[in-house]
Amino acid sequence: MKPYVKVVEVGPRDGLQNEKQLVPAATKIELIQRLADAGLPVVEATSFVSPKWVPQMADADEVLAGIRRKAGVSYPVLVPNVQGLERAFAAGVEEIAVFTAASSAFTQKNINATVEESLARLAPVIEQALAKNVKVRAYVSTALGCPYQGDVPVSEVVRVTKALVDQGVYEISLGDTIGVGTPKKAREMLRACADAVGMDKLAAHFHDTRGQALANVLACLEEGVRVVDASVSGLGGCPYANGASGNLATEDLIYMLHGMGFETGVNLDALVDTAVWMSGQLDRLPASKLARVKR
Amino acid sequence: MKPYVKVVEVGPRDGLQNEKQLVPAATKIELIQRLADAGLPVVEATSFVSPKWVPQMADADEVLAGIRRKAGVSYPVLVPNVQGLERAFAAGVEEIAVFTAASSAFTQKNINATVEESLARLAPVIEQALAKNVKVRAYVSTALGCPYQGDVPVSEVVRVTKALVDQGVYEISLGDTIGVGTPKKAREMLRACADAVGMDKLAAHFHDTRGQALANVLACLEEGVRVVDASVSGLGGCPYANGASGNLATEDLIYMLHGMGFETGVNLDALVDTAVWMSGQLDRLPASKLARVKR
Repeated sequence: MKPYVKVVEVGPRDGLQNEKQLVPAATKIELIQRLADAGLPVVEATSFVSPKWVPQMADADEVLAGIRRKAGVSYPVLVPNVQGLERAFAAGVEEIAVFTAASSAFTQKNINATVEESLARLAPVIEQALAKNVKVRAYVSTALGCPYQGDVPVSEVVRVTKALVDQGVYEISLGDTIGVGTPKKAREMLRACADAVGMDKLAAHFHDTRGQALANVLACLEEGVRVVDASVSGLGGCPYANGASGNLATEDLIYMLHGMGFETGVNLDALVDTAVWMSGQLDRLPASKLARVKR
Repeated sequence: MKPYVKVVEVGPRDGLQNEKQLVPAATKIELIQRLADAGLPVVEATSFVSPKWVPQMADADEVLAGIRRKAGVSYPVLVPNVQGLERAFAAGVEEIAVFTAASSAFTQKNINATVEESLARLAPVIEQALAKNVKVRAYVSTALGCPYQGDVPVSEVVRVTKALVDQGVYEISLGDTIGVGTPKKAREMLRACADAVGMDKLAAHFHDTRGQALANVLACLEEGVRVVDASVSGLGGCPYANGASGNLATEDLIYMLHGMGFETGVNLDALVDTAVWMSGQLDRLPASKLARVKR
């Protein structure tokens, strides 16, 4: 039997969140459904952040109400606080994602809190979610570097990761938010976190700002990670990174995984079709190499 | 002491050869000099192919006469046959590169010869070069797949590699011409060739058509390769690959190598400046992620 890698599709949320051009809810719904139909086991659907902060996600309720949920597919929704959690409960969400970072310089600029304060704010969100049997995933940003403080000690990444797991989070997505990491550093960071909480609790979430994302993923796969985040057509990226190109493109990731003998459950042709279609909706070329070849 | 990786810059030849827009000789000369000044130890300068086949290289003599050669830097020139070799001798070239492939389907379409015939044609070129103390490098194309026959048996790559080494070639550049390879396959192919001729005779030359190049390089570095080809700003690619994006970008490679603790001798800032400058000469955005961030 082939080893399995779970690919978490973050395009409809992490990707579109960083697109200035407002995308109609109907397009988002079609995107999410196409991704699930292509075989992605997890499709992050939207975010219950304040529309003042992220206008792109103002239609979260409409999107969630509109999608045909496919059996066996998880549709996590980003939730920043208890207000967001209430909206998630009302929408019948079965999984949420929360976010913080490994550097206070980043959380201060981003959510006006230290990492410690951020963890304290998340505690009731996580607790109340778990009390209603809603699964909780967490993003730890700046795991390989911070745009404001530069290097981030691995010990800080480990500390935040462990705190979240101790609170009941089932999966920690370790994010190279600004795409500065290289394979050796990615491997060492992942190993340190795995030593603290176990590899089965960890996901790799790398941005391709400097073209390193897939190489970093490879190093982490070799280290044992079996959950990887990616964004169809390379949608999105980090608004804090100057000239940032997007997330790792899901189709480039799947191509590598299949070539290496991993099972993902994803139909690559259907995924590439979706990448090309979505890029067309945004009136641009796909950001992934694979979709450009097949276009 | 840090381990050293020799990066072979192929942009001025392999890169520009696949550019339709004719680049003035003065620009090529400046490009080559900037790359050497940035610290690249090998800069493939031009090609003595027939101008009928590759009009971009019609100015090979002018380019070679124009460059200020830097001590310690090698400027190999691609030579397809003995006629080309005569021109290389006349130009005072100290190193040549020859090319063939691991699949006859490719060589038939490309140079109207089987692999065997191609090796026979190269034999006098290599012999005459070595007789004049001119070093010979060789490209083996389609090492991870062929656009016409699909899979290429590793045994064929090994056979061609060994034949060339037996003829006195000092370095074999194993090329994923159409960018179809993934890390596991790249690693296995490299290992098989190293078992036959020794790792110190091998270079990795991967195209980024499907976004896999840097991950493939990482796998080969782990396997022990210490010579990697790349093209500044991702210039070029393979004209046989539909919608092909370019070679692996040198600056993305150097970023990874330095991040992993390898020494290259390259000044990354100067290299990125060169990538941005050259893209400007071609009136386009750099194809590398790093140059786009720093632009």
